[in-house]
Amino acid sequence: MDLVLNFQDWPTFAEGRLSSRCLISQIEVHGFIQRCLTAVGAKPHHARSLADVLVEGDCRGHYSHGLNRLDMYVKDIQTEICAVDGEPVVEKESAATALVDGKNLLGPVVGNFCMNLAIAKAREVGIGWVVAHGSNHFGIAGYYAMQALKENMIGMSFTNTSPLVVPTRGKERTLGTNPLSIAAPAKGGDSFVLDTATSTVALGKVELNDRRGEPIPDGWGCDPHGKITTDPKRVLTGGGLVPIGGSEATGGYKGYGLGMMVEVFCGILAGAQYSKYIRTWKVTDHVANLGQCFVAVNPENFAPGFNARMSDLLSIQRDQNPADPGSPVLAAGDPERINMKKCEEMGGIPYHINVIKYMNGYAKKIGVNQLLPCDKIVSI
Amino acid sequence: MDLVLNFQDWPTFAEGRLSSRCLISQIEVHGFIQRCLTAVGAKPHHARSLADVLVEGDCRGHYSHGLNRLDMYVKDIQTEICAVDGEPVVEKESAATALVDGKNLLGPVVGNFCMNLAIAKAREVGIGWVVAHGSNHFGIAGYYAMQALKENMIGMSFTNTSPLVVPTRGKERTLGTNPLSIAAPAKGGDSFVLDTATSTVALGKVELNDRRGEPIPDGWGCDPHGKITTDPKRVLTGGGLVPIGGSEATGGYKGYGLGMMVEVFCGILAGAQYSKYIRTWKVTDHVANLGQCFVAVNPENFAPGFNARMSDLLSIQRDQNPADPGSPVLAAGDPERINMKKCEEMGGIPYHINVIKYMNGYAKKIGVNQLLPCDKIVSI
Repeated sequence: MDLVLNFQDWPTFAEGRLSSRCLISQIEVHGFIQRCLTAVGAKPHHARSLADVLVEGDCRGHYSHGLNRLDMYVKDIQTEICAVDGEPVVEKESAATALVDGKNLLGPVVGNFCMNLAIAKAREVGIGWVVAHGSNHFGIAGYYAMQALKENMIGMSFTNTSPLVVPTRGKERTLGTNPLSIAAPAKGGDSFVLDTATSTVALGKVELNDRRGEPIPDGWGCDPHGKITTDPKRVLTGGGLVPIGGSEATGGYKGYGLGMMVEVFCGILAGAQYSKYIRTWKVTDHVANLGQCFVAVNPENFAPGFNARMSDLLSIQRDQNPADPGSPVLAAGDPERINMKKCEEMGGIPYHINVIKYMNGYAKKIGVNQLLPCDKIVSI
Repeated sequence: MDLVLNFQDWPTFAEGRLSSRCLISQIEVHGFIQRCLTAVGAKPHHARSLADVLVEGDCRGHYSHGLNRLDMYVKDIQTEICAVDGEPVVEKESAATALVDGKNLLGPVVGNFCMNLAIAKAREVGIGWVVAHGSNHFGIAGYYAMQALKENMIGMSFTNTSPLVVPTRGKERTLGTNPLSIAAPAKGGDSFVLDTATSTVALGKVELNDRRGEPIPDGWGCDPHGKITTDPKRVLTGGGLVPIGGSEATGGYKGYGLGMMVEVFCGILAGAQYSKYIRTWKVTDHVANLGQCFVAVNPENFAPGFNARMSDLLSIQRDQNPADPGSPVLAAGDPERINMKKCEEMGGIPYHINVIKYMNGYAKKIGVNQLLPCDKIVSI
């Protein structure tokens, strides 16, 4: 387990813990990521695609899917486990669908290609449903779904991932955390953006509790015998995450079904790796060949007034009296919006100093001289 | 609360409680449902559509969505809250999409029309995405998704429903149980069929515990202040169901997001009623105008070998060592398959005698003379 993983799920603003951070502008982070990737052979426009997704992840407060994972992508290119030459290729196509060979390129290169294609099809026939095999980790799923918002469309994205989740009643990790994202545009730039793993939580949250010596809530993970446990160590050593819903009694079989649904849309439909055949998390001895699915739906093809109804639906939830007056009811995407606003107000992204130190050390090793500055310290 | 609701979630075979039941063949139940509906003015082919869905619901063990709800549909027609004349109409169409006006007809009439249209489009361009407004309760969502299996396609269906679910952090019922279903074909007639509400459980399960005087598990529902409770009475009197995942700490916000997703595909995209505007459950003083969404995806448009991969994915889950040797790992749809097999072996559907008595009494009142026989008593 490497150093970086230690900061994977570092508490974000929302948790309200005061700590010192290095404030770095998005442009600087973006440039740094590009330099690191091109230093090991990535094409500049491919590096830019990845930088876009990682910076967006950090701005939205998902540090586990941002700069923090840069070394993973760099390593994939260095070891040639991930390809740098070529572009994704459409293998099969109809007016509304496409099967894409991602050619083992960086996940965001494949993701952008597919999402753009889905949007173009949705512009013509109201929907585009594009699946890819031969892909790699693509960062936050929400990034691709949100591309559709720019066209005032509903966007969706799905990816399979390395097996970490134990199905209901089982004791083997035979499913990934298989995230799904759906974004839908409301009025005036407002939106609904659901971006969620189909496990109760990400592995990083269990690791964080383990490091703090705190138990995990009932329903986050199971031990090696498949029993729900509150001991994070048991989850991390031979156990696994459990699907949304937790135990069978509290509806875990529903989350298990949703994780399977994502796998059907990704590995199964695309003819990529799937389920337990996907390489072990953090082990990169062979190509990932992930399956991914990208969908755009054009509201223009349905009832007029979509955006107004979306805004109203969001208001119905947000404007109700909350159970706890200090915790307003949010819509999916609101916590990230709050995070982005704070970044904007501060003029950059606040990173833990150890992440910056680690990344700068890593950059030097691969011959990058222009490092991340850490001269603006903020308390958050 | 009427008598029938008392049997809504009567324990099925799976619970293993011994009780006496009337065994009635599918054909007899089917005919009875048709007679009741046509007696109050439904067109024969519309009545047949509804009978198909209700009998399927019972065969699959979802008694809450079968014969048990017949009186609700009959009443909707009697009171003219639901229309009997006409057929659904396509309002807007592309090669891959359609917006349908359900003309306030019975839910299954609208559902079949839309699903057939989605399948026809998927045959041509790989996908069909059809949404309807002006619809009514359509029975089990899985029925429509499974129509696609006959064409070796992936099917999906979604419907919004009367508000019963309280969003995470809230205390008002502003979402329905908003079910979603996805069916995907494997080899040799095997399949994956997820058919699930986006709440942890259905209201009927809470009612059942209340009648038994038993507490409910943590994570099924909340009290009128929005706090998770184990007291079913608090859920039923001013509280509400909670989304899949339960409390915020155990991922309830994910289920809340999924419930919103279903509403986006249904009420929002279709321009139907939505969220808190949908009429109160069991109150039928005005038309429902539900929104529904039906999708077919043709695996032929993607990577070859879909069915074989599906079979393998199912086997990976089913064949693993279970946590409890007495409870094998199942795939979504397996419990229903087991139930259907038992019905087949027994030669009919085993109904609680009180349901049959109630339905026969109801039928007489609307002038139906040929009643359900209750001469075959079985212990299950």
